[in-house]
Amino acid sequence: MSNRLLRVAAGQLGPISKDESRKDVVERLIGLLNEANEAEVDLVVYPELALTTFFPRWYFEEDSAIESFFEKEMPGPDTQRLFDRAKKLGIGFCLGYAELTTGGDRYNTQILVERDGRIVGKYRKVHLPGHEEHEAWREFQHLERRYFDAGNHFPTWEAFNGIVGMAICNDRRWPETYRCLALGGAELILIGYNTPLHYAPDPTQNALAGFHNHLVMQSGAYQNGCFVIGVAKGGLEEGVDSLAESCIIAPTGEIISVAATSGDELVVADLDLDLCNNYKDTVFDFDRYRRPETYSPITDQKGTITPAGEARDS
Amino acid sequence: MSNRLLRVAAGQLGPISKDESRKDVVERLIGLLNEANEAEVDLVVYPELALTTFFPRWYFEEDSAIESFFEKEMPGPDTQRLFDRAKKLGIGFCLGYAELTTGGDRYNTQILVERDGRIVGKYRKVHLPGHEEHEAWREFQHLERRYFDAGNHFPTWEAFNGIVGMAICNDRRWPETYRCLALGGAELILIGYNTPLHYAPDPTQNALAGFHNHLVMQSGAYQNGCFVIGVAKGGLEEGVDSLAESCIIAPTGEIISVAATSGDELVVADLDLDLCNNYKDTVFDFDRYRRPETYSPITDQKGTITPAGEARDS
Repeated sequence: MSNRLLRVAAGQLGPISKDESRKDVVERLIGLLNEANEAEVDLVVYPELALTTFFPRWYFEEDSAIESFFEKEMPGPDTQRLFDRAKKLGIGFCLGYAELTTGGDRYNTQILVERDGRIVGKYRKVHLPGHEEHEAWREFQHLERRYFDAGNHFPTWEAFNGIVGMAICNDRRWPETYRCLALGGAELILIGYNTPLHYAPDPTQNALAGFHNHLVMQSGAYQNGCFVIGVAKGGLEEGVDSLAESCIIAPTGEIISVAATSGDELVVADLDLDLCNNYKDTVFDFDRYRRPETYSPITDQKGTITPAGEARDS
Repeated sequence: MSNRLLRVAAGQLGPISKDESRKDVVERLIGLLNEANEAEVDLVVYPELALTTFFPRWYFEEDSAIESFFEKEMPGPDTQRLFDRAKKLGIGFCLGYAELTTGGDRYNTQILVERDGRIVGKYRKVHLPGHEEHEAWREFQHLERRYFDAGNHFPTWEAFNGIVGMAICNDRRWPETYRCLALGGAELILIGYNTPLHYAPDPTQNALAGFHNHLVMQSGAYQNGCFVIGVAKGGLEEGVDSLAESCIIAPTGEIISVAATSGDELVVADLDLDLCNNYKDTVFDFDRYRRPETYSPITDQKGTITPAGEARDS
């Protein structure tokens, strides 16, 4: 029998209001952790920016106004309790939060914590969506590109008896994310997200939000022979409705477990990490079948170059 | 109104037996063309290796034995009739065939022919699947890596009032294919395939063949803001059952038309190429959101390198 069996959970959160305290949110995270303990779960994955409301929906003129949403240390005064409880229960976790470094950089960050309490990995979001300046025509803002610096690589770590990578929200729409992680050996990719159901630049996409969410993670799992855990902060938060539909996806591309609500909910599945080999050793044997010498546009170009040699009009 | 409306069709084929003549196959292609004419279609896409049975399923010791499956010129004596008929009807087409060059190279090739009869593009398959040597344990062989040289790039062309790219069969499983084509401006990607329902290296994938086929093309379409036309040679051919499920996919990722049979069948849809902009100008605005400086593993590595710096065991 494989010694790489793992019971995992998406620790989906419902809305967090602007005036909800860190302490109260951590209590909710611990509530999910206790539930995970009863279900004998090894790893709980929480959403992106799991400690506060999704503040990039507001424009703040002064940088100081957003400081309260950031963590200066991890664990910090309010999150220490989560670390202590998880270590006591022997449950690992993945937590998304807004990180303020001592140098003043600000990242949209996720950390991976092993069952013994060690922080084994930190990932900083590479693909920041949205816009930089206030745009009055929008019903609500999406100012991640104003408030965050961008991460610059896709690390992987040996953890949970396998190789683990992380990605955050918009990263999941980009196939390069999964590929870079899989080239680093990833067998399990942990993705937190906050996805408003209204997409202001093209509202025709609104009705497809759930379909797109699953489509990109299912193809990312299959094309890289990985398990993917996608975890939402869902529901109606400060007037903005967000997608839930947290799910756990096998290397087959199939959704093996999915959230039934848009509130705090633990979504559990049993994984056998050896199942990745069914794909990594056959149709997606990278060493045998990839053709990196033909992929140069992917790293040589940022935008489109038409057959006439021109940049795309937009 | 957009002047980029196009009526397209997947010209799906049922089985072609080993002793079926080129002339007879061309008659079937022309039959689909005539049907396309009645439906006022602008472009018909035929499958991979559409002129013969799928010969890589057999091992031939001598190279000379496979020569009869290859085209030395295009159009040639048997295919000229197809070109003539298409030009007369003012219908463009995309045709997959085995190409033997004057230099003796052999490719798995697709060409794109405009409505005025000009060959505007040729694509040679980059991702050759299967194996190089006879493997007696298999029910049937998949010797594309023995019989074909590999193509080396992903060109795009201005044609059909838009920008068109091509890919062939196994190429569609690799996200790099769609991305390279979209970086070349592709708005419409034409993909022929022959996909046996039995996958010898891992038969647990058999039951998922149809799901995987649609998953990879739907995500490729959505993540690149392209239309995709996927066209099968389906049905039971020389004892090997192959996937049909030819389909036409919008930049939304949605399947907008799909084959109902596994035989010769014309699958039609109306496309507005301007719909690509809904995605190419927003969530997948490459110029704004791609991060090529973080993608270096995709072109620097062929296979996996684990966090410990080792190649993957397989």
